[in-house]
Amino acid sequence: MNATNHMFRLAARPVGMPKRTDWDYVEEPVREPGDGEFLVEVQYISLDPAMRGWMNEGKSYIPPVAIGDVMRAGAVGRVIESRHPRFAVGAEVVGAFGVQEYALSNGKGVTAVDSRLAPLPVYLGTLGMPGMTAYFGLLDTGKAKQGDTVVVSGAAGAVGSVVGQIARIKGCRAIGIAGGPDKCRYLVDELGFDAAIDYKAEDVKAALRKHCPAGIDVYFDNVGGAILDAALATLGRGARVVICGAISQYNNTSPIKGPSNYLSLLVNRASMTGMVVFDYADRYGEAALEMAGWLVAGQLKTREQIEHGLETFPDALLLLFRGENTGKLVLAVKPKP
Amino acid sequence: MNATNHMFRLAARPVGMPKRTDWDYVEEPVREPGDGEFLVEVQYISLDPAMRGWMNEGKSYIPPVAIGDVMRAGAVGRVIESRHPRFAVGAEVVGAFGVQEYALSNGKGVTAVDSRLAPLPVYLGTLGMPGMTAYFGLLDTGKAKQGDTVVVSGAAGAVGSVVGQIARIKGCRAIGIAGGPDKCRYLVDELGFDAAIDYKAEDVKAALRKHCPAGIDVYFDNVGGAILDAALATLGRGARVVICGAISQYNNTSPIKGPSNYLSLLVNRASMTGMVVFDYADRYGEAALEMAGWLVAGQLKTREQIEHGLETFPDALLLLFRGENTGKLVLAVKPKP
Repeated sequence: MNATNHMFRLAARPVGMPKRTDWDYVEEPVREPGDGEFLVEVQYISLDPAMRGWMNEGKSYIPPVAIGDVMRAGAVGRVIESRHPRFAVGAEVVGAFGVQEYALSNGKGVTAVDSRLAPLPVYLGTLGMPGMTAYFGLLDTGKAKQGDTVVVSGAAGAVGSVVGQIARIKGCRAIGIAGGPDKCRYLVDELGFDAAIDYKAEDVKAALRKHCPAGIDVYFDNVGGAILDAALATLGRGARVVICGAISQYNNTSPIKGPSNYLSLLVNRASMTGMVVFDYADRYGEAALEMAGWLVAGQLKTREQIEHGLETFPDALLLLFRGENTGKLVLAVKPKP
Repeated sequence: MNATNHMFRLAARPVGMPKRTDWDYVEEPVREPGDGEFLVEVQYISLDPAMRGWMNEGKSYIPPVAIGDVMRAGAVGRVIESRHPRFAVGAEVVGAFGVQEYALSNGKGVTAVDSRLAPLPVYLGTLGMPGMTAYFGLLDTGKAKQGDTVVVSGAAGAVGSVVGQIARIKGCRAIGIAGGPDKCRYLVDELGFDAAIDYKAEDVKAALRKHCPAGIDVYFDNVGGAILDAALATLGRGARVVICGAISQYNNTSPIKGPSNYLSLLVNRASMTGMVVFDYADRYGEAALEMAGWLVAGQLKTREQIEHGLETFPDALLLLFRGENTGKLVLAVKPKP
């Protein structure tokens, strides 16, 4: 194997929105796998809001990407060389392979997948971290139960679209908040949400009051900022707020805007709880099994927006922060054919 | 009974700090109790931060005081006339008798107390709503358990001082945040807190880092604002934040400052939960029994700061918002002898 690898290495900690010069696009020879290692040809790279946080210095739920390191990313690909007992050549695998064409791995955190059961990008979305996040965030942290009114922000995204659908499957009313008429139509017409609120065109607080006359039981937050405040103002008694992310705040150059309406937690005896999907690693199997069943039964729909060409990574990532993706945003390593 | 009653009736909804003209000080004849009613001579009136919220319009955990109504307040006194089967003349009682000299009651929400067991003001503090708030907030909402590091703000106040002492009794480390060296000495030297942080003189975040090297397990918040943010920055994994009040924000004329560091809930898989003591009404007896036992055993110390003279009510209330009370602030109806 004398191939050349291309990759994005972190060059600088971004201020505000990340820009192309925050990474170096580098060409390096591919190293042969050593004993207990295998080489993956990366096919699809997951683009996630959380990647922005990984680029910052400081304590978080995982260490930041170091300057000079390959940019961290989940990805799926195929094993093309192996000196590892469990991952043979030809195996399809998902893992934190990074933003690059080829990845060496010792198998840690790597799972075998099967493109005959679901297209590979689905393993980065509904059957991957975003799907697991939706499942455990809604059912475990949020304790959603039949009859609850569930509201989710970032509802047309990889996590939010699954949250609303699982809510429906579990007998809840599902209301999605998303930006623009196309996304809102998608939520209601294609995914079966009970209602959608277009935050770019509507007064979110007034719309929540209308759609949740008895108050919100579970609010699943992916965005933070003004939308979180509107949801807090509409909580029902004993509501559970799940803090999954805050995409509206990730590129702030000023301090994060805290939720002014947090005293609604007191008035409503409500709770606000943070969740990190990695804590559920020992239960991914259980969730994946149930989710795969829903996929097969057509109760759970999945959508991936695929961008093409490794080199477009910096621009493709920004689609997330501009709200320009619907469903799971994925980067195919190969250029558009 | 031809006595004259004096009372404070709400005259205006305050903007910022309440001022004397937000109430009318009124003289009215005392009405005779009707069938099923009794007349209470009010002796001590509870002054609580929550009273500020009751003066605002809008939805909260109880309806606001209406313009023209007697200002709502907990109080203790003695029954001096009765046509009620359960409350005889001479009985000592605690209830929401309001800021006035005499109160008519039908017995709803009224409990008999006994000044031979504890001085009457204690029934407004450690054995009253503040004590119940501390007990259930710390143990039920906060789920404090042996070995936990518990931090409480407003620590020298009626609720905070009990929170820290119960934490110690239950085998936790207790760190109090209070304003000024006298309060801090009181917490450590008299109440047995493990440490106290003077927010007027110290960098609270740095002090919390020093006193909680492994992070906070339970943070009991009475104050909101910058101190809540400092505590959020110091949470340990799985921490519980109890939202009991936000005295720093009650007199804001600008919007409430939300906690900028709320994403620490995500990083630390922590929760922030509001509590209202009234929800525990059916368990007050259980708590009062345990607390009385601790009082008798000398494990729980109680302190009341008593102001004198009904007419001083508007000024006495402001002591709370200026942080000028230590322990439970109580207004004796009679002027200083």
